This record gives sequence, C-alpha cells and structure tokens, in this order.
Amino acid sequence: MPRIVVDVMPKPEILDPQGKAIAAALPRLGFSGFASVRQGKRFELTVDGDVTPEILQQAREAAEKMLSNPVIEDVVNVEVVAD
Amino acid sequence: MPRIVVDVMPKPEILDPQGKAIAAALPRLGFSGFASVRQGKRFELTVDGDVTPEILQQAREAAEKMLSNPVIEDVVNVEVVAD
Repeated sequence: MPRIVVDVMPKPEILDPQGKAIAAALPRLGFSGFASVRQGKRFELTVDGDVTPEILQQAREAAEKMLSNPVIEDVVNVEVVAD
Repeated sequence: MPRIVVDVMPKPEILDPQGKAIAAALPRLGFSGFASVRQGKRFELTVDGDVTPEILQQAREAAEKMLSNPVIEDVVNVEVVAD
C-alpha cells in the first residue's frame, strides 16, 4: 500500500536539546566532521487505496494540525512513497 | 552547509503505540482514508565542509550505532541534502 511520509523538524530558532546531546556525543564516539545535529520526527501514513489529491491534501492538513506543533515545529516535507 | 538526513523507523514487527494513537485520532479529527500510522525519527547532521565518502560512511555508522537502537529500529534512509 502507498505511504505518505511527513517530516517534522524543530524550528531553527528553537533550542533542540536532544540534537545538542547527540552532537556532543558524536566526537566522543569517534565520529568527527559534523557541525551540529537536529532531531525531528518522521511519520509514515499508510493510505487505504490510491493516493488521490484529496488524500494528499488531508495528509498536509493533518501534518500541520496534528502531527506538528506549529509554535515550535515546521513540517519540512510531505511526500508520497510508493511500495 | 550540506546536511545528511538519517531516518529511523520502528521495525515492522515492533508495536508502535504513538503511531497507533495517531491512527486512532485521525478519523476523530475528520481525516479519513489512512489505514495505519508509524512514528519514527529524523536526524539532520550538518556537515562541517564537504560531504566526502568518508563523512557519509561515518554518518551511516553513527546512524546504526548511535542514532538507532538496532533491536527495535531500522535505519531506513541516509541521504545528503544540499542547501
């Protein structure tokens, strides 16, 4: 069944303590060359049937209204992934 | 600066209570047509300089060893995103 992937990231101006913790731990574990890390969320919505423009619009609305908190997060990507 | 995006999802056989909660809430909020939802994580690693094959390899290793728990999660995607 086709899936719609929704990616949500903390807004750039919002402090991201999880990302900061990962960025601090990377060099301690031998991984160098990374300047910073941000941690966000990825949702996979499995669609019941075909991905119509209406379903995609519903996914976009759900992403803005339910899957993200618009005060602190941005929906950075909504895309269809075929299986 | 270029970024490497790492996507981590719960393994298909692992119960995902957050995804289940979202899937149950969607129709209550008027969003229909979705069969199921899975929630995972998205990491953005900002690279200090150019993305060399070594840096990409480091990101893949970090994804497997640090950004995911291989017992319950799969790294589903590691890709370079240019800005």
